[in-house]
Amino acid sequence: MGGELPQETLDPEDWTQLRSLAHRAIDDGLDYLQQARQRPVWQPTPAEVAAQFHAPLPRAPQGAERAYQDFREQVMPWQMGNTHPRFWGWFMGNGTAFGAVGDFLAAIVNPNMGGGNHVGNLVENQVVDWCKQIVGLPRDSGGLLVSGASMANFVALAVARGARAGIDVRAAGVAALPRPLVFYASTEVHSCMQKAIELLGHGTQALCKLPVDAQYRFDLAALARAVGADRAAGRQPCAVIGSAGTINTGSVDDLDALADFCARERLWFHVDGAIGAVVAISPQHRHLVRGMERADSVALDLHKWLHIPFEAGCVIVRDRKAHHATFSLTPEYLAHAPRGLASGADWFSDYGLQLSRGFRALKVWLSFKEHGLDKYARLIDQNIAQAQRLGELVRAQPELELMAPVGLNIACFRYRGRGGTQQQLNARNEELLIRLHEGGVVAPSYTRLDGSYCLRAAIVNHRTRSADLELFVEQVLKTGRALEADAHA
Amino acid sequence: MGGELPQETLDPEDWTQLRSLAHRAIDDGLDYLQQARQRPVWQPTPAEVAAQFHAPLPRAPQGAERAYQDFREQVMPWQMGNTHPRFWGWFMGNGTAFGAVGDFLAAIVNPNMGGGNHVGNLVENQVVDWCKQIVGLPRDSGGLLVSGASMANFVALAVARGARAGIDVRAAGVAALPRPLVFYASTEVHSCMQKAIELLGHGTQALCKLPVDAQYRFDLAALARAVGADRAAGRQPCAVIGSAGTINTGSVDDLDALADFCARERLWFHVDGAIGAVVAISPQHRHLVRGMERADSVALDLHKWLHIPFEAGCVIVRDRKAHHATFSLTPEYLAHAPRGLASGADWFSDYGLQLSRGFRALKVWLSFKEHGLDKYARLIDQNIAQAQRLGELVRAQPELELMAPVGLNIACFRYRGRGGTQQQLNARNEELLIRLHEGGVVAPSYTRLDGSYCLRAAIVNHRTRSADLELFVEQVLKTGRALEADAHA
Repeated sequence: MGGELPQETLDPEDWTQLRSLAHRAIDDGLDYLQQARQRPVWQPTPAEVAAQFHAPLPRAPQGAERAYQDFREQVMPWQMGNTHPRFWGWFMGNGTAFGAVGDFLAAIVNPNMGGGNHVGNLVENQVVDWCKQIVGLPRDSGGLLVSGASMANFVALAVARGARAGIDVRAAGVAALPRPLVFYASTEVHSCMQKAIELLGHGTQALCKLPVDAQYRFDLAALARAVGADRAAGRQPCAVIGSAGTINTGSVDDLDALADFCARERLWFHVDGAIGAVVAISPQHRHLVRGMERADSVALDLHKWLHIPFEAGCVIVRDRKAHHATFSLTPEYLAHAPRGLASGADWFSDYGLQLSRGFRALKVWLSFKEHGLDKYARLIDQNIAQAQRLGELVRAQPELELMAPVGLNIACFRYRGRGGTQQQLNARNEELLIRLHEGGVVAPSYTRLDGSYCLRAAIVNHRTRSADLELFVEQVLKTGRALEADAHA
Repeated sequence: MGGELPQETLDPEDWTQLRSLAHRAIDDGLDYLQQARQRPVWQPTPAEVAAQFHAPLPRAPQGAERAYQDFREQVMPWQMGNTHPRFWGWFMGNGTAFGAVGDFLAAIVNPNMGGGNHVGNLVENQVVDWCKQIVGLPRDSGGLLVSGASMANFVALAVARGARAGIDVRAAGVAALPRPLVFYASTEVHSCMQKAIELLGHGTQALCKLPVDAQYRFDLAALARAVGADRAAGRQPCAVIGSAGTINTGSVDDLDALADFCARERLWFHVDGAIGAVVAISPQHRHLVRGMERADSVALDLHKWLHIPFEAGCVIVRDRKAHHATFSLTPEYLAHAPRGLASGADWFSDYGLQLSRGFRALKVWLSFKEHGLDKYARLIDQNIAQAQRLGELVRAQPELELMAPVGLNIACFRYRGRGGTQQQLNARNEELLIRLHEGGVVAPSYTRLDGSYCLRAAIVNHRTRSADLELFVEQVLKTGRALEADAHA
């Protein structure tokens, strides 16, 4: 019936040519990582390069070869810099070469990890089981790989509200709650928690932020008072969010004490372990996150301190049924068959927001096997020791001021020089940071602590050597002195 | 000060060895795609392979070489099959070889696309601008690459409720709404919309599902009645969701008429274009989605009909300020600097849930340049013609029954054979589908239409040739006849 229909394909006309291009990409990519130390950490994208990115939708083909050349010339050189040994901004991993190969292979086999019966499920289930082992939650917990901790925290809080609402909140909505739910965290909690609570429809006000002590840790007495006051006022305390590593200073809440409190008060205990959950793999430092294993849910990131390429986060929920009940939805076109491709008891799409899901599990699976967790643990210890060393180097310089205790792998400090008002010091350190970035030698980031602008170095870096920290301090002193001289000139 | 600290790294001790392994991965990966047609579409993972995935967290390293061997032996052969020319299940793309190279390169440079000043922003902004051109929304719209349409729809509905709530719903929450919001869609709307509305805290009930006509399109008279009734009952109509391609049958709502209605009623008009938004690039078929360009927001998927490897979805929101106002949150550690790495006016993290974001833009940017959109348009036309051909082949066989008009590239039919009760036919076709999967020659999926179980083929495949469709029909007839013979034996 009918004639032949047109038969074009996106496969290359000439596989040999594309193969040779792909091999070049491998060599260029590995060169890029091998030579990381030889490049500036960061440099601005030149205006003439930036101008290239305004061309309209390409209707005509330019071919893989020319597209790749555009990448080499316009994209590869002007990167963020977090592959570099002296990048310490925000809290990002470096990635690894074999991790990148993992992403290539995942895109080649290209399964949809939302559902169906295929081996990807076994890979992801194994990786999620490994994450349960890392955080110390039982094997029969629910779990899911997600884009990162923002989503992991969102999923956990969605489960918490569903499990503790006392009504069918999926069906009836937040407005049907007899009493408004309250979520508790310290002022140091990550902003993604506020975003999650707002998106879930509870309003910013539903996140009760409580003070911290001098170590930037959750004040438990304040928590007890707040929960009591909310109950008295007719609100319904729902969950307490502890931080295993805060974003500003790397402080870790007393998770054991929070777990005790939650058990006593029958509250959901969630741990945001985006930064520090993986510290649990280190025999030397795991005591810092003790109590995490008692949580009802834990969010963790694998693209941070374990250096899996972006994106790789994970959420673990102790009550697997509650996890499933929050997200499961099986219309007819997704019904599970008893055998064949559409079989499988548990589909990952029933545990999160995404239906189509990429094979992010593969790079984790390959990387964990490649290095083994003992090595990751030593690298965590190494970064913690480096942050302590940086703290010592700062304390040894009278022109510098350590602004908070060094928590985990994060040091916050500023250039004081010959001193000045708070406003002067803030302005000077803001400009100092920009000059450091523009100098291309070191790339810390920044925060404000009690109104003081600080340089902030999060040493999440498997390429940093201790000599890099000495160079960092030198650069800060040199740049700070020059700024001060300018100001007084 | 102090001695040398330990200095391990995740970089390979021997770059040459890893390089050679990566080159092997390239060859194996490209072979895998080049030989797609020679493999079974799907086969179950053997029990002895599945048993390998229960080993505990690897503490010791096994090295990249052995990890890769595990992938080759345990993972690569037992895939979902959506790279195969005869995979037509659900609605998934195949991916491409160069797209996979794009994911490798993205993981090598490994930027965090949440924020900061680096070239990745220019790449993503260009890709998002291209998506605006595809769907016909203005250049100054807001937009974001996301994991897929589930997230794109979630983002769009979150903006819609914020923009139309009449109160500051972020701050005050859903419970503070003076009147409950209502979202309208047809019964054919994708399940992710219900999930989004539930997660946003409005309750399942806030999604009003209205009947469809014989072409499975939104019944506009029913919509008008429902909006009127809700207003009269003190509820607040918020948004209407049109489908540019429904998941069951590929029907497209009358988007122009929906746009008229929304303009008249001052409702937010959202288009779920996960399946069909990209039809707008085809001069031959773009009339089908006319009216989409009048939407307030559009969700589309690039990992479906444009064959970008998972994950790549996109949301476009006409009112950029409303988009920003829904998600923007800038704590001190994310403050934007005037110059340097931390500069940049617009950070993508202010337009969605994620803070850490991978460089998914790169594979899209490379692929669009490689092929040009005219070629993607021809491939869309080709798949639509193939679906029509499949419909003709089905109609030509008295033993087969076409169960719905062929919408876009989706055909739903069943094996009737010598007939039977609805229950018998359902059971027979369910078993038939499983046998097709187990046979490994073709992989459609399934749905139920008005209680009838159907085989469902979504031809989203740049490798399908028209002869594959003839083979499909042959396989269905052969398998159906065998089942019928068994039943009567």
